[in-house]
Amino acid sequence: MKNPLSIISYGKYDFINSLAIEKLESYHPQSNLELEKVPIQDPYSKNGQELRLNFIRQHLKSNVDYLSGEKTFNDNQSLKGNIENYIGMSQIPTGIIGPLLINGSSAQGPFYVPLATTEGALIASYNRGTKACRESGTITVITLQEGVQRTPTFKFKNLIDLAKFVAWVSENKEIFSILTRETSNYAVLNDLGISIEGNILILKFEYTSGDASGQNMVTICTDKICKYILSNCPIEPVYWTIEGNTSGDKKVTPLTTKVRGKKVTAEITLKRDVIESVLKTTAELLCQQWKISSSGCLKVGASGIATQTANALAALFIACGQDVACTGEAATAITRMEIDENNDLYCSITMSNIIVGSVGGGTSFPTQKECLELMDCYGPGKSGKLAEIAVAVCLAGEISILSAMSSGHFTSAHQTLGR
Amino acid sequence: MKNPLSIISYGKYDFINSLAIEKLESYHPQSNLELEKVPIQDPYSKNGQELRLNFIRQHLKSNVDYLSGEKTFNDNQSLKGNIENYIGMSQIPTGIIGPLLINGSSAQGPFYVPLATTEGALIASYNRGTKACRESGTITVITLQEGVQRTPTFKFKNLIDLAKFVAWVSENKEIFSILTRETSNYAVLNDLGISIEGNILILKFEYTSGDASGQNMVTICTDKICKYILSNCPIEPVYWTIEGNTSGDKKVTPLTTKVRGKKVTAEITLKRDVIESVLKTTAELLCQQWKISSSGCLKVGASGIATQTANALAALFIACGQDVACTGEAATAITRMEIDENNDLYCSITMSNIIVGSVGGGTSFPTQKECLELMDCYGPGKSGKLAEIAVAVCLAGEISILSAMSSGHFTSAHQTLGR
Amino acid sequence: MKNPLSIISYGKYDFINSLAIEKLESYHPQSNLELEKVPIQDPYSKNGQELRLNFIRQHLKSNVDYLSGEKTFNDNQSLKGNIENYIGMSQIPTGIIGPLLINGSSAQGPFYVPLATTEGALIASYNRGTKACRESGTITVITLQEGVQRTPTFKFKNLIDLAKFVAWVSENKEIFSILTRETSNYAVLNDLGISIEGNILILKFEYTSGDASGQNMVTICTDKICKYILSNCPIEPVYWTIEGNTSGDKKVTPLTTKVRGKKVTAEITLKRDVIESVLKTTAELLCQQWKISSSGCLKVGASGIATQTANALAALFIACGQDVACTGEAATAITRMEIDENNDLYCSITMSNIIVGSVGGGTSFPTQKECLELMDCYGPGKSGKLAEIAVAVCLAGEISILSAMSSGHFTSAHQTLGR
Amino acid sequence: MKNPLSIISYGKYDFINSLAIEKLESYHPQSNLELEKVPIQDPYSKNGQELRLNFIRQHLKSNVDYLSGEKTFNDNQSLKGNIENYIGMSQIPTGIIGPLLINGSSAQGPFYVPLATTEGALIASYNRGTKACRESGTITVITLQEGVQRTPTFKFKNLIDLAKFVAWVSENKEIFSILTRETSNYAVLNDLGISIEGNILILKFEYTSGDASGQNMVTICTDKICKYILSNCPIEPVYWTIEGNTSGDKKVTPLTTKVRGKKVTAEITLKRDVIESVLKTTAELLCQQWKISSSGCLKVGASGIATQTANALAALFIACGQDVACTGEAATAITRMEIDENNDLYCSITMSNIIVGSVGGGTSFPTQKECLELMDCYGPGKSGKLAEIAVAVCLAGEISILSAMSSGHFTSAHQTLGR
Repeated sequence: MKNPLSIISYGKYDFINSLAIEKLESYHPQSNLELEKVPIQDPYSKNGQELRLNFIRQHLKSNVDYLSGEKTFNDNQSLKGNIENYIGMSQIPTGIIGPLLINGSSAQGPFYVPLATTEGALIASYNRGTKACRESGTITVITLQEGVQRTPTFKFKNLIDLAKFVAWVSENKEIFSILTRETSNYAVLNDLGISIEGNILILKFEYTSGDASGQNMVTICTDKICKYILSNCPIEPVYWTIEGNTSGDKKVTPLTTKVRGKKVTAEITLKRDVIESVLKTTAELLCQQWKISSSGCLKVGASGIATQTANALAALFIACGQDVACTGEAATAITRMEIDENNDLYCSITMSNIIVGSVGGGTSFPTQKECLELMDCYGPGKSGKLAEIAVAVCLAGEISILSAMSSGHFTSAHQTLGR
Repeated sequence: MKNPLSIISYGKYDFINSLAIEKLESYHPQSNLELEKVPIQDPYSKNGQELRLNFIRQHLKSNVDYLSGEKTFNDNQSLKGNIENYIGMSQIPTGIIGPLLINGSSAQGPFYVPLATTEGALIASYNRGTKACRESGTITVITLQEGVQRTPTFKFKNLIDLAKFVAWVSENKEIFSILTRETSNYAVLNDLGISIEGNILILKFEYTSGDASGQNMVTICTDKICKYILSNCPIEPVYWTIEGNTSGDKKVTPLTTKVRGKKVTAEITLKRDVIESVLKTTAELLCQQWKISSSGCLKVGASGIATQTANALAALFIACGQDVACTGEAATAITRMEIDENNDLYCSITMSNIIVGSVGGGTSFPTQKECLELMDCYGPGKSGKLAEIAVAVCLAGEISILSAMSSGHFTSAHQTLGR
Repeated sequence: MKNPLSIISYGKYDFINSLAIEKLESYHPQSNLELEKVPIQDPYSKNGQELRLNFIRQHLKSNVDYLSGEKTFNDNQSLKGNIENYIGMSQIPTGIIGPLLINGSSAQGPFYVPLATTEGALIASYNRGTKACRESGTITVITLQEGVQRTPTFKFKNLIDLAKFVAWVSENKEIFSILTRETSNYAVLNDLGISIEGNILILKFEYTSGDASGQNMVTICTDKICKYILSNCPIEPVYWTIEGNTSGDKKVTPLTTKVRGKKVTAEITLKRDVIESVLKTTAELLCQQWKISSSGCLKVGASGIATQTANALAALFIACGQDVACTGEAATAITRMEIDENNDLYCSITMSNIIVGSVGGGTSFPTQKECLELMDCYGPGKSGKLAEIAVAVCLAGEISILSAMSSGHFTSAHQTLGR
Repeated sequence: MKNPLSIISYGKYDFINSLAIEKLESYHPQSNLELEKVPIQDPYSKNGQELRLNFIRQHLKSNVDYLSGEKTFNDNQSLKGNIENYIGMSQIPTGIIGPLLINGSSAQGPFYVPLATTEGALIASYNRGTKACRESGTITVITLQEGVQRTPTFKFKNLIDLAKFVAWVSENKEIFSILTRETSNYAVLNDLGISIEGNILILKFEYTSGDASGQNMVTICTDKICKYILSNCPIEPVYWTIEGNTSGDKKVTPLTTKVRGKKVTAEITLKRDVIESVLKTTAELLCQQWKISSSGCLKVGASGIATQTANALAALFIACGQDVACTGEAATAITRMEIDENNDLYCSITMSNIIVGSVGGGTSFPTQKECLELMDCYGPGKSGKLAEIAVAVCLAGEISILSAMSSGHFTSAHQTLGR
């Protein structure tokens, strides 16, 4: 066996290339002083609400008539495909933070992010984090990979039948791409993984899904492919299923070197004085808290190192018509902090499972559409931007909560702002 | 060292006793024929919506004026402690399923459950699962444990300082219960765990929190206790924090033998003919699918065995004012299926982290209160019932989705009902 | 982006092909009656020892002069490269089991396996398992994948530096294969994986290593490649290391869909009557025990499903000069049992990390060489066979211990044979 | 429910108390200059071997006639209970390192540790680590907990039967301690945990086992208790087994807050100049390597943070007659490094599953007994000391290997000393 010609395994759906690098290097952010800040006074009164609605109407391209209650939902027909046994609309209080200043491979500029929650202190915490980042510079964000999987599973009479089936599948693989193209305008089949355990075979079909989150699209394509295989392969499995529960859908799996949705990494170097003035702690205490938190995650066997990424994602997903049941898998993150040679604090976050869409799902309902438009994330071509904003918000939130925990004001914030 | 007198470690916050057993044994459920079913026709039209609203007004004790859109939220003052930077209300389509027939240590009777989601087919799937359970009998549910933790963490100069601090803490523990009682009317301190790694000490304070989900309450009590320790113990840590990220808050940890919120187990034996008539599969295929799914979870290192518990919990938490960011930790489950001696199918689910409240959090907002009242789960004394309903819904959902996957109609359901 | 041409990701180092299938299908095993069995009487006395030594001399091609104590080690020069601060030889009691009847992609025929241990009942248990398999038929074994990794890790000033470095590496990859070939006669570089977390980059170099276990060989090749990169790439990391602790070396990681060493799967269908006569249990009880054990592993978060694979591997590795510190990673397994349509019991095991060598390491010391020769596994071209025997022994052992646990004689065996 | 009286959960088998603290504080180690070092010249030649054998005979209380080959094993009767199908003795090259200077709650003084291995560079690496520790001061070691578990598992017709069984067990628990005392002179039953999943009940019996590793002892006691329960409890399980595979025996589980065998923590502060002179790196590079390695473990989902603990434990277990198949579970560790306020490097290791015995198992075979006697660890009352030495050796080894990786001489050491 000689050395193979092509040995880079990441190539097919990786985003790092000279174009992306050039885009990141050529960005010139506005200065913090020039940026318009969300008014934070009167956090919940009519007056405060009006201030913020006016701010949105003046500075952002979003109509907020449904969010503000001026218009009421009555287009029941639009519910088709999203709900059954419908009785009405649950209403979730929604706030806005920002600007979050990002230099990303998709998202570039200042962003104002809507979050729907009933947990006091949550939005204040995220807003404080965005401020600390903004006053320290720009959050750099790179999307690394993209992919959605479906993992049909086949069981055979014995290992020899399984081996013959696998040999047939690998000789007939070209047709799977063709079938995908015939079935969907958006889905692209990028990879087919094979995993064998005794007489059970798992085929991992890995797709990209355009700007939709894609879970349904890849189910339909995979079903088509499986039915083709079953009709044509001379070896018959004794059982098969469209999903063997190994795709990571709706559950937390240690997928840290894999991707589900988009894999994104982000970094910011916090300035010492900003840590003191905005976050009311020191670089040393904040770094110490991260060390303790990181080692705590490992001690309890948590997947990754994160403190409140689930807070941001649940709130963002509710506001923006995403699949909220994916919060658990999406919140898996690795944060890192380290004091650098200038005694500033390097902070990064990496998230592998940011499964979001700017089309499909619940994105076109009235308040959801308004929330997406606040960030210019509604419609085709915007899912990459949405994913990068989500990760940058998570980074800001980790910075804020760890700061609070490092200096003893975590408890007092919840006493003042929470119930 | 001789054998200690008391060796049952579960005693303090366990619910299994003769009273609970008697309650379960004396329950006489209504027959399926007598039960009123949620009308499922016209899944989303005005007409269908009205049918279901009338059903609710007639059969359940809930006012649905806000859900239905007849009344509009305008009590901004009530937002205090739940939101900052408020701009308005996100609106999430909400449906209802049921009845779910439960014989539980807290919840007994038929229940109608609201779910807020934008994912097509989700509610239809859960409703089908409740039907299969109801036609097979009653879901038995037992709450096993209860507890919410805060895990302050202390770092010392060296191991000997740490040892002295631990010795002091264990000699002064009675005061911690007193401090808890002084600080909160609801919190009860049940246990104090000690975990040491090098010069780092984690104290795990374990509480019950009445009918609130309790995360803030236990933070405040633990902060009071820590400040007492720091003021009085002669040994000073070099760093301390109210939370070392080991409490399992907002993240998935392999806590399967522990509890966060409530630990609940539920079972139903599905009749063969019901599996065929309602679920359109067979006991053998459904059991085979569970085996494949269970082995799939293990292969990818998922925590527990579950397929769509996150769907039910996200939808229920949004509708009922719960902390949606806890979906990931709460969705951790172990399902199990096995053909019994009558050739029927035994199905169970066990969930350790059902962290819910019937008071506090977002429970008293208009639509949230209406949704809780649909199940008589609003207010003091109702959190145990809410937890048991949540777990029973999850069981119904696992049954339904695995049935769909076992018989090939998973894909077609998503093609028909999803987008 | 259009569909890529090549979408099967497993191709490069997978063993399933028509040749392997043909080899498996053409094997005609001897009948159980014709096979010579290891004499089991007098388990430890001089007399029993002599019986077995004579059996070996008569039926196997191994000289056992060192094992038997007839010759004493005195070739200190041969210790070079294997030990420092040498004081002498630790002596571990060693037994033999078999024959184990295998139809494998590498190993075919009856095998007699040496095991070194001080745990009573261990060898008796494994021998009983081999008997039950042999009386039921032949264990089918397929090697699925092969690979050894080294994962050098690089840290950069920021994400943009990292991106430039990655771009350079992917443009210069052809040279890495050339460098590997120049550095080692055995190592072949098959894949290069890229994983990014903030400003940290992990390069996963994946090799095959001929018939050596390969850990040192791949370290040396990777070091050569890294030094080439560092000398030539215009971007300089701020820190780098030959190993970032992600290769899975000497530790248990959830690598179930990956490989370290060899990934092997094996199956046998146990006959009902053999389960009763040899294993003293029933197919139903044994399957029930597997279900309980499998669910137990999941509840405690164990990697895989196995009961005593570590026993076989530690004993085999000690006897055969393998790296005993790899026992933990190698013992990771997924076993499965299921009653089939004939009411017999299908049993399989899949092991991903069988890292063994038939050359190098401790293979050429006197007793180690004798033990390897007992199985015709000493020298070039034999590592695949050794890996398949190891996995088949593990399967036999899982069958035996679960049988004992299912019928209550686990305890009595340890009371009779253990201390 | 009011606050319970006793809330410290660790009390029963924890070792931290004023006595232990006093013992640690009153220890006065010899200075490094006074300590006798193992001669390291001529690593494997006859001459070097003689030098070291003479050193042992002069300074340690161990007879090394069997290790050195002067005497040959011929007491086949002593093999009873340790081996079946015996054919002879496998011989493993063995070296010695030290002194390792320890101030522990059990082990105090300089220790010389035998290690049996065929991996080149391993012993040199550990010896270098002990030197760096010794020149920096004394390793502080504290044993934190002790326990061995057996987890019988019971399956019931339904949840209500299970609840009744649990209620009966908790009312009859006093008898379990009595039965334990009647069955074994050494086993003490300390705790009984209860875990429920659907109709499956796991009882976790937690014992101490005197100075034996205890796996067989606790099996026999638990069997006796289970048979008592089954004879007396009016509720009958449909299936039961002595072990449901949840005790952590022979496999790696995320037990980091639990114990199996002994839980031990150890620390040393390495002096800057010793890091440079002995370890050929700097405090900053070594700390950076630990950070990378620690984050690598987390990324691949390894249990704990360790690099080569398995090397020390496999080698020590082989030499000292321990159960080598426990290497995987025992090697689970959390290491930590951090630069302190003096710019020295704080290093710690914590290991939860050090399952060792100074009696029973293979401890009394000739070379095994000699190896244990080298450390004065043979016989009753010595298992605590053996556990603490094992953990201290692991700490020295982590320091040495991470140093090598931090400075680029990891590869060269393996090129020079390995094969």
